[in-house]
Amino acid sequence: MSLVAVPLDKAYRLLNHGPLTLVTTADAAGRRNVMAASWAMPLDFSPPKVAVVIDKSTYSRELLAANPQFVLNLPGRDLAAAALAVGSCCGREGDKFARHGLRTQPASLVLPPLLSDCLACLECRVLPEEAQQQKYDLFLAEVVAAWADPAVFHDGRWDFADPQRRTLHYQAGGAFFVTGDSFVVPGGED
Amino acid sequence: MSLVAVPLDKAYRLLNHGPLTLVTTADAAGRRNVMAASWAMPLDFSPPKVAVVIDKSTYSRELLAANPQFVLNLPGRDLAAAALAVGSCCGREGDKFARHGLRTQPASLVLPPLLSDCLACLECRVLPEEAQQQKYDLFLAEVVAAWADPAVFHDGRWDFADPQRRTLHYQAGGAFFVTGDSFVVPGGED
Repeated sequence: MSLVAVPLDKAYRLLNHGPLTLVTTADAAGRRNVMAASWAMPLDFSPPKVAVVIDKSTYSRELLAANPQFVLNLPGRDLAAAALAVGSCCGREGDKFARHGLRTQPASLVLPPLLSDCLACLECRVLPEEAQQQKYDLFLAEVVAAWADPAVFHDGRWDFADPQRRTLHYQAGGAFFVTGDSFVVPGGED
Repeated sequence: MSLVAVPLDKAYRLLNHGPLTLVTTADAAGRRNVMAASWAMPLDFSPPKVAVVIDKSTYSRELLAANPQFVLNLPGRDLAAAALAVGSCCGREGDKFARHGLRTQPASLVLPPLLSDCLACLECRVLPEEAQQQKYDLFLAEVVAAWADPAVFHDGRWDFADPQRRTLHYQAGGAFFVTGDSFVVPGGED
């Protein structure tokens, strides 16, 4: 698969259903990291913004201090084991991308890489809300570019025809949910 | 079904997988409202906190200004039409609970009611972060009590054996996803 651009006014729809994300960070010195974050959500439509919780103890926080940018990448089921692994261990001890077979490609407007095998990616620039970062580990950011695999997201909608290529939702203790079947409530179409 | 208490240290697990919520609000004068919010997530484990986006234009904001408490209720598929309806119309024009058949019961520690037919409910007290409320419509709150239907959440875990009794994830235009099947990555069990 390859990732194609998603119009920014549709970017919130990538995240609206609450999927698990993999957060990539990087700085100008070439350091980079990836971690799992379930606590991520849209914050605004246009310009699109997101909110994500990133714990103070993480290497990702060190990289965010050096370069306040991140990418939210949405893994499918084939990346569940990698998502669990990068959520459990520590980026300071070696490159987690290589260790877990996570292929990357350059983003368009930020330094952190896109994860090539994810279903979608949102390039984000952190908003200068340091008090919330310190007090709640809460990062607010503007989405400056968005990408998705057109086989699963097109015309502004997810299309999870292939059960193996669906986003994930994390529970706890290694247990995940896949995004389930879709249905439409009559009268709600736009 | 009836709701039973969830230990506070497990309350984040009700929301960890990113489900759609119905936010109930109420004030001491007896006014109350319910609206849909997809943009909700855990913010901390213990004490449990949540973050939710509630637009300035809503009647819920008026009630939150009068009484800074809300309940996040998690609807199942049987409430999808009601969720869509309360997300589309305006609480100032009449009681949305009655209009959409949403049964309520008193919460334990806050004024807004629990939705009796939801799968889980989190009673929340808003944290005094007015700047974020004004600037981003973002409400941070502490979870002071939590409830779930024990048929679908027990021992600190969701158990969605019945496909009809699963949480929802909203896409757009009346289209929902149900929470899908679960799987466990070996080695991740706790």
